[in-house]
Amino acid sequence: MMTREDVTAMILSAKRQAGLTWEGIAASIGMSPVWTHSAAMGMNAMPAEKAVAMVDALGLPQEAALVLQESPTKVWQQAVPTDPCIYRLYEIVGVYGPTIKALIHEKFGDGIMSAIDFDMSVTRVAHPKGDRVKVEMSGKYLAYNAW
Amino acid sequence: MMTREDVTAMILSAKRQAGLTWEGIAASIGMSPVWTHSAAMGMNAMPAEKAVAMVDALGLPQEAALVLQESPTKVWQQAVPTDPCIYRLYEIVGVYGPTIKALIHEKFGDGIMSAIDFDMSVTRVAHPKGDRVKVEMSGKYLAYNAW
Amino acid sequence: MMTREDVTAMILSAKRQAGLTWEGIAASIGMSPVWTHSAAMGMNAMPAEKAVAMVDALGLPQEAALVLQESPTKVWQQAVPTDPCIYRLYEIVGVYGPTIKALIHEKFGDGIMSAIDFDMSVTRVAHPKGDRVKVEMSGKYLAYNAW
Amino acid sequence: MMTREDVTAMILSAKRQAGLTWEGIAASIGMSPVWTHSAAMGMNAMPAEKAVAMVDALGLPQEAALVLQESPTKVWQQAVPTDPCIYRLYEIVGVYGPTIKALIHEKFGDGIMSAIDFDMSVTRVAHPKGDRVKVEMSGKYLAYNAW
Amino acid sequence: MMTREDVTAMILSAKRQAGLTWEGIAASIGMSPVWTHSAAMGMNAMPAEKAVAMVDALGLPQEAALVLQESPTKVWQQAVPTDPCIYRLYEIVGVYGPTIKALIHEKFGDGIMSAIDFDMSVTRVAHPKGDRVKVEMSGKYLAYNAW
Amino acid sequence: MMTREDVTAMILSAKRQAGLTWEGIAASIGMSPVWTHSAAMGMNAMPAEKAVAMVDALGLPQEAALVLQESPTKVWQQAVPTDPCIYRLYEIVGVYGPTIKALIHEKFGDGIMSAIDFDMSVTRVAHPKGDRVKVEMSGKYLAYNAW
Amino acid sequence: MMTREDVTAMILSAKRQAGLTWEGIAASIGMSPVWTHSAAMGMNAMPAEKAVAMVDALGLPQEAALVLQESPTKVWQQAVPTDPCIYRLYEIVGVYGPTIKALIHEKFGDGIMSAIDFDMSVTRVAHPKGDRVKVEMSGKYLAYNAW
Amino acid sequence: MMTREDVTAMILSAKRQAGLTWEGIAASIGMSPVWTHSAAMGMNAMPAEKAVAMVDALGLPQEAALVLQESPTKVWQQAVPTDPCIYRLYEIVGVYGPTIKALIHEKFGDGIMSAIDFDMSVTRVAHPKGDRVKVEMSGKYLAYNAW
Amino acid sequence: MMTREDVTAMILSAKRQAGLTWEGIAASIGMSPVWTHSAAMGMNAMPAEKAVAMVDALGLPQEAALVLQESPTKVWQQAVPTDPCIYRLYEIVGVYGPTIKALIHEKFGDGIMSAIDFDMSVTRVAHPKGDRVKVEMSGKYLAYNAW
Amino acid sequence: MMTREDVTAMILSAKRQAGLTWEGIAASIGMSPVWTHSAAMGMNAMPAEKAVAMVDALGLPQEAALVLQESPTKVWQQAVPTDPCIYRLYEIVGVYGPTIKALIHEKFGDGIMSAIDFDMSVTRVAHPKGDRVKVEMSGKYLAYNAW
Repeated sequence: MMTREDVTAMILSAKRQAGLTWEGIAASIGMSPVWTHSAAMGMNAMPAEKAVAMVDALGLPQEAALVLQESPTKVWQQAVPTDPCIYRLYEIVGVYGPTIKALIHEKFGDGIMSAIDFDMSVTRVAHPKGDRVKVEMSGKYLAYNAW
Repeated sequence: MMTREDVTAMILSAKRQAGLTWEGIAASIGMSPVWTHSAAMGMNAMPAEKAVAMVDALGLPQEAALVLQESPTKVWQQAVPTDPCIYRLYEIVGVYGPTIKALIHEKFGDGIMSAIDFDMSVTRVAHPKGDRVKVEMSGKYLAYNAW
Repeated sequence: MMTREDVTAMILSAKRQAGLTWEGIAASIGMSPVWTHSAAMGMNAMPAEKAVAMVDALGLPQEAALVLQESPTKVWQQAVPTDPCIYRLYEIVGVYGPTIKALIHEKFGDGIMSAIDFDMSVTRVAHPKGDRVKVEMSGKYLAYNAW
Repeated sequence: MMTREDVTAMILSAKRQAGLTWEGIAASIGMSPVWTHSAAMGMNAMPAEKAVAMVDALGLPQEAALVLQESPTKVWQQAVPTDPCIYRLYEIVGVYGPTIKALIHEKFGDGIMSAIDFDMSVTRVAHPKGDRVKVEMSGKYLAYNAW
Repeated sequence: MMTREDVTAMILSAKRQAGLTWEGIAASIGMSPVWTHSAAMGMNAMPAEKAVAMVDALGLPQEAALVLQESPTKVWQQAVPTDPCIYRLYEIVGVYGPTIKALIHEKFGDGIMSAIDFDMSVTRVAHPKGDRVKVEMSGKYLAYNAW
Repeated sequence: MMTREDVTAMILSAKRQAGLTWEGIAASIGMSPVWTHSAAMGMNAMPAEKAVAMVDALGLPQEAALVLQESPTKVWQQAVPTDPCIYRLYEIVGVYGPTIKALIHEKFGDGIMSAIDFDMSVTRVAHPKGDRVKVEMSGKYLAYNAW
Repeated sequence: MMTREDVTAMILSAKRQAGLTWEGIAASIGMSPVWTHSAAMGMNAMPAEKAVAMVDALGLPQEAALVLQESPTKVWQQAVPTDPCIYRLYEIVGVYGPTIKALIHEKFGDGIMSAIDFDMSVTRVAHPKGDRVKVEMSGKYLAYNAW
Repeated sequence: MMTREDVTAMILSAKRQAGLTWEGIAASIGMSPVWTHSAAMGMNAMPAEKAVAMVDALGLPQEAALVLQESPTKVWQQAVPTDPCIYRLYEIVGVYGPTIKALIHEKFGDGIMSAIDFDMSVTRVAHPKGDRVKVEMSGKYLAYNAW
Repeated sequence: MMTREDVTAMILSAKRQAGLTWEGIAASIGMSPVWTHSAAMGMNAMPAEKAVAMVDALGLPQEAALVLQESPTKVWQQAVPTDPCIYRLYEIVGVYGPTIKALIHEKFGDGIMSAIDFDMSVTRVAHPKGDRVKVEMSGKYLAYNAW
Repeated sequence: MMTREDVTAMILSAKRQAGLTWEGIAASIGMSPVWTHSAAMGMNAMPAEKAVAMVDALGLPQEAALVLQESPTKVWQQAVPTDPCIYRLYEIVGVYGPTIKALIHEKFGDGIMSAIDFDMSVTRVAHPKGDRVKVEMSGKYLAYNAW
C-alpha cells in the first residue's frame, strides 16, 4: 500500500533529478509555493485536480494522486526543534506570542487567528544592508462563542 | 530594587486606569505597537529616549526608565502553550516550519532568517467572509560561515 | 489590581456561603451551566451584560465585572491530569480521538471541529442499570484552506 | 503470528480497494461507526459474532477474526497530539475538564463518568452559518466507595 | 476560606498532640484505617456523619466537617516518586501490571478492575524470617461496552 | 543468539496454538499464575527445574530453558501507561501510596515493604452487585539501617 | 508546627555559628558522618537517643528531637542534577550500573544490593599524583522470591 | 564496518558458549572485572595490548581488537532506570549525593571526585545475617580553578 | 537516493581504511578541522569546490559531492548528552552562560553572538602540569532591532 | 541566615548604584571578569582574600565575605534556555560537541577537557564587517583510567 511517506520521497527524488524548484513546481500546478511544498511534505491534502497536476508534472504513478488527496495526520515537533533556521521561528513565536494575542484582542475582541482558514507566503526583499526574508501570514479571525 | 516585573505591572495598571490602547501608547512614543508591547512585557530593551517617553506617557517613576533600558533575559514557554490564541501560532510554525526553511534555502542559499535583526506587524484586514488577522515578519538573511 | 484569580475566589466563596448551585447561577444570568462555570473559572470572557448580572447575582464588587470581561489567557494541564473524574475524559479523547477524526473526514472532508465556535452541555440521564452522564459537544466544521 | 497491526492494515487496505466507508462497514456488522472504527484500529475487542461479520464483510483471512476478539493493550498519545483535528479535542477537555467535573459532582455526587461502560456518536448537523460537528458521549456514573 | 490543605494540617497537628494513631482514629469514626487516612489527606470525600465524627474526635472547628465532605481534586505524582517506601509500590505495579491485566482478562473477559468502586487494607503478618506487609485490594470488575 | 524476546514470543505462540491458560501452565510447572506469567514475560528469572518444566510443557527448544534462567533486566513504563486496565493500578498507587507508607510506619517503624522478597495473587471473588477482582501482595518488611 | 525543613535550617545555622564539622557532630552523637549528615538533611530518621544527643550537641529546642525521629519522605532529584560534584556520581552510576548488576549476578545470583539495609563511608586517601576520594558502600544482598 | 555493538554481541556470545565468567575473562587479560565488563559493553576504550588479549582469549576476529581501542561515545540512561538492581544505585546516589558533596568539601575544599581518573570494585562480603555487596569507588580529587 | 547518513558513513569508512586524520583531511581540502569534521557529520553544507575536493580526497562516488552541498537539517541532542567529553561542554555553557551574556551586554550592548556567522578552533596547548585543550569561538555581534 | 541569593542581590544592587562594570569590579579584586561575575552569581567559591576584597570594593557587610567562600551548589538550566544570547551557546555546543570530542580524541587520546581545572575569557574583536565576540576556553586534558 503506497503511503504518504512514499509519495513524499518520490516527489523529492523527481525534483532532484529534474532539477526543479518549489517555485517552479508550484507554478506548474497553479498554487503557491508554501502550500505546494507543505502538501508535498504530507501536511496538507490536495484537491483532486491539483493532485493530478502534481503527478503529471513530476511523472509520478497515478496511485500517488489518490494518496495526495487523503486527509493527513499532521505530526510536527512539539519539542522545540534544533535546526537553527526552524528554531528561530519558534523563538519569534515564543517571544512575540503574547504580543500578537494582545493586539488581536485589541483589534478584534476575544478570539483567535485561525490556523485552518489560513494562508502564508515567503519572499525575498532586497535591502542595502543585506536582503531580508519576509513571511506573511493571514488567518480568519474566529470569535469565541458564548452560550 | 525595582524589577522588570514591577515595571510591567505598573504599565499594565496605568494603561487600564487611563483606558489606553497599545496602539495609542506606541504612537505616543513613536514606535510600532508590536515592539512597544513586547518591550513593555520585558522582552526587548528600550533605547534611552523611548524609555523616557514611555515613563512620561504613563506617569511612571523615573527609575522605571532605567529598568526599561536594561537587557532583559527573555524567558518564554518551551512547552507548547495552551492558550488557543497563542497555540495556533505554534501550530503554524510546527506545520509550516520545514516549508519556510526549504523556501529560504531555495531563495537565498544555506542560512536563516534572523530573529534579532527582525521586525513584525499585526493588522486587521477586512474580508467579506469574515475579517482576517495579518501577521508580517521581516528578518535579515544570515548565511552560514565556512572557514 | 484585582486579578482573575481574585474574582474566581470571590465567586466560589459567595456560592458556598449562599448555598447556590452552578445550575442556579447560570439561570440567574441567562446562560448555560457549562459556559457559566467556565467563565467563572477564568476560561472564558463574559459579555458586559452577563458580567454585570454575575456581579449582581453574587454580590461582588463592581470592579469584578470589568475583570470578567477581559480576554483570559487559558492555561490548562498539558500533562494528563490525575484526578480520576478528569482523567477519564483524557482517556476517552486518547482512545477515540483518531476515530472522531476519521468520521469528521468521512462526513465533511479535510477539516476540523472548531473549539472556538463551540458549545457543550452535561446532563444526567436516568437508566435502570445506573444513571448515566451525557456530554454533548457541538463545534463548527472548519475546512482547511488551499491557496 | 498475525498481529493486531496486521489486521488493522488489512482492514484499511480492503476498505480503500472496495471504496467502503466506516458508516457502511458499521452497518454491515450491525454496530455503530464509532465503535466499529475503534475496534478496527485495535482499541476495542470484538465479540465473536461481530469479528466474524467483519472478516466476512471485508474478505479477510479467518485468523483475523480471532485477533479481533483479543483484549487489546490500548496505547494512545499522552503527549498532546499535534494533528489539529485531534488537538482541538484535547483543548476542549483541557479547558472544560474542571467544568465537567464540577457539574457531575453537582448532579450526581462524588464520583465519575465511566470510560469503560461508555458509548459515543459523531454526527453532522446542518446549520445556516456553516454545518456543525456534534459529538455525544454517554458513560455510567460510578460513585466512590467508602469503607 | 478554609481549604482542604488547612484541614489536613489541623488533623495532623491534632493527631500528633493527642498521640493518636490512624488505627485509633479510624476506629473512632467506624471506618477502615486506609480510607480514613486517605480522606484525611484530601484524597476521598467523607459522608456527612463521618466528617462530623472526625471533627468531634479530633476537636476540629465545625467548618472542617463541611470541607471534608467536598469532592476533592485528587492530585498525585505522575513522575515516579523517590521515597523508597512509595517507589517500591510503583516498581511492583510496573513489573506486574501486564501480568495482572492478563489474569483479569483470563478470569473475567475484556475489562478492568475499578479504582472507584474499590477498597484496600494494609496488615502486618508475623513470619519467622521477618514479618511481612500484606496489602489487599478489591475492585469491582467493569466490562467494556460495545455499541 | 536466542533472546528473552524470542522466548516470550515462543511461549505466547505455543499457548495460543495449544489453547492453554496461564492458570494451566502455572499448574503444570507447580508455580503460581502471577509468577509464571511474569517469568514468561521476562520479568523474573526461573530456577533451572522450573525452566525445564516450562520448556517441556510448551514444547520449546532446549536452549530456551537456559534463557529463562538468566537474570533479566526489568524494563517497565515509567511514564504512566495508557491502557485503562493497567492505568487503574497506577491510579490506586498514586492515590493510596502515601497512605500505605503511613500505615507501614505506624505498624512496623521506619522502613519499607520489599519488592524483591515479594509475592502476589489475583483472584475472582463472586459478589451480588458484580464480581470483584482481588489483588493480594505480600512483601518482607525491611528496616532502614543506622550506622 | 515545627517541620523537618525548620530543623535542618536550625542544624545548619548552629553548625556555622559554632564552627563545627560533620565529622565532629557525628563523633559527638556516636554515629558515622555520612549517616549523621543524611539524617540532618531529613533523609533518615534518628533513633530517639541519637535525636536527643543531636539536639543537646547543637543546642536545639527539645521539639526538634521529636521531628528528627519521624519517618521522612525522601525526595531527591530524578532529573540528573547539575552540580558538578553530584553529577559525577550520576555519571559513575550511569556508566557502571550495568557492570555492577552483572557482577552481582555473577557473585550472588538473581537479586540486588539493598539500599535500605545499607551503609556508606567517604574518606580521603593520600596519593602522590593527587589525593583521592574513596567512597565505600555496603548493602545486604536480597534474592528475588519465586512462588 | 564492524561496530561496537557487534563486538559486544560477539563477546557475550563467546562468553556464554565457553561458560566463562567476567572474573575469569578479566584475569586472562590482567585487568579488573569492573573495567573489563565495562570495556566489553563499550563504555571504556581498551589499550592495544588489552584489546589483543581480549580478542585472543575469546577467539574474536582481529578487527574487533581495533574497535575495542576506539574512544566510545558513552550513552547511558538519563531517565532513572527501572531495573531494580540498577535503580537502587540511583536511589543511593539520589539520597546520599548531597552528603557525599558536603563531606568532600569538608575534607578537601571546593572541588569534586573525578569520574575520569577513577576506579571501582565490587566484592562479596560474608555476613551472619546475610552476605553483603561491597562497592568501592576511588576518584582523584579535582579542585576548581580560580583565575 | 543517497542520503547524508550514507555519505557520513562513507567518509568514516574511507578515513578508517586510509588511516587518515581530520587534521589531514581538512588540510587536503583547504579548510579548518572543526568545519571539515562538522560538514562531514552533516552539520554544515559544503561549497561546491570543497565538496568535490572532499570526494576526490577520500575516493567517494561523485553523487556524494551533491549531497554534501545540500542544506542540512541540523538535529542535535536537546536533552543534555551523557558522554563525559560532550557533557563537560554543556556544563561549561550551563555554568557560564549568564556570565557570557552579561559580558556581551557590557562590551557591546543589547544583542548576541551569532552562531551562524561563526567559526571555532580546537588546539592542544602544552602545560607543565598537564597539557590543556583550548577552544576558541568567534561570532559576529548582532544587535537587537527596535522598530 | 544570609544566603548566596542575598549576597548576589546585594552585589547587583551595589553595582547598579555605583555605576560599576564587571570589568572594573574584576580589576579591583585582581581576577578575570568571567570568574568574578560567575562567583558573584554564586557559581564559584571565592578564596578568602578575594571575598574580602569584593566585600570592601562594593561596601557589603562582612558576613557576605563568609558566604562568598562557601562551596556553592551549582544549579543551571538543563532544559535548553530561551534567552537568545544564551541559547546560541547551546546551539554551538549542540552542533559542534561531537566535533570537539573527535578532535580531542585525535590530538590527545581517550579523555576529556576538564570543566573544573578550567578558565575562560570573553573579548571584543574589531572587524570591518561588524565587530565579533571572541570566547576562549581552556581546560586541562584528563585521560580515562584503566585498571
